[in-house]
Amino acid sequence: MSTSVPLTPERILEAAEETLRRFGPAKTTVVDVARALGVSHGSVYRHFPTKADLRDAVVDRWLQRMHPALAAVADGAGPAPERLRLLLWTLAETKWERAQDDPEFFSAFAELAEDARAPVVAHIDFVVARLTQVTAEGVARGEIASADPEATARALFDATARFHHPAGRSAWVRPRIDASFEGVWDLLRTGLLPRDSG
Amino acid sequence: MSTSVPLTPERILEAAEETLRRFGPAKTTVVDVARALGVSHGSVYRHFPTKADLRDAVVDRWLQRMHPALAAVADGAGPAPERLRLLLWTLAETKWERAQDDPEFFSAFAELAEDARAPVVAHIDFVVARLTQVTAEGVARGEIASADPEATARALFDATARFHHPAGRSAWVRPRIDASFEGVWDLLRTGLLPRDSG
Repeated sequence: MSTSVPLTPERILEAAEETLRRFGPAKTTVVDVARALGVSHGSVYRHFPTKADLRDAVVDRWLQRMHPALAAVADGAGPAPERLRLLLWTLAETKWERAQDDPEFFSAFAELAEDARAPVVAHIDFVVARLTQVTAEGVARGEIASADPEATARALFDATARFHHPAGRSAWVRPRIDASFEGVWDLLRTGLLPRDSG
Repeated sequence: MSTSVPLTPERILEAAEETLRRFGPAKTTVVDVARALGVSHGSVYRHFPTKADLRDAVVDRWLQRMHPALAAVADGAGPAPERLRLLLWTLAETKWERAQDDPEFFSAFAELAEDARAPVVAHIDFVVARLTQVTAEGVARGEIASADPEATARALFDATARFHHPAGRSAWVRPRIDASFEGVWDLLRTGLLPRDSG
């Protein structure tokens, strides 16, 4: 098995996800991941020198998978306020679905993410940058009032934390959480609109 | 010790808090609480028939302690938007301070609260009722625009979850969290104001 297919970082990360799903973060070791791949743990360490490196790569891969869909929304057409709603909605709903479809892995991911500062900060920066881009476009078009699009973007991200931060996952019960999102968005949207458009 | 002072629910709850602080929720038993009081566990069960009853009472007591300060803000004078800000700020900052001053007990409390649905729901209802009261006053005075003050109150509560929900406590690092609160509040406040006042 180890001789036929080259041991790529991608294969290691897939095996690590599967191992995490089965054993949970506390009990998963690099040796378990190596065993699932039929290789020595030294071969895994060659790609990920420490267990923390492997953890960060697993979290990073999981988060990066969402980014193309979020970028597509940000780069799309339509009024800026509506694109901001869709960006935040996509961010939230993707996580709700993954938490529901694969709860073991999502719990493992949430626990790992608490310690994986670098990929989490990179993810937040990515989302806030997309929100900033759309907010600035909205300001330029007169659809949004904001003296500081990046500060507004960060406020939007923070005000919707309960919908996208994994720590809030016990409250992601549908359709209640959908209604809660709409209530928060209504208030935020009114806060974004220029005062002379009402 | 058990003969001199009557065994009140209050004394049991104080002992339970102290025991939780020392052992954590997973390792605290009713026997430990009884031992700390120098009484039999039967005496504790007479007041709290199950461990879940004792857990709920500990969480309820902790949450209720915040209520007089929140009610005082709601019943106070001043513009309604400013009272809403102070209500949410008091709710958040009280928790930040308790989490910082007594981290062992706060972690134990947060863990217990996840299972203590009844007192948590009662607490949320209390806070949302105070926010509704102030929002409705603001609407009557022309300081706030809202077609449904209770829906607005719930949106305010949900949009500030990261500041007051214990699950978000790892991000309660000052002064960063203060700045984040102000950013969110600026956006929410603009969303509350009547459109013709800008």
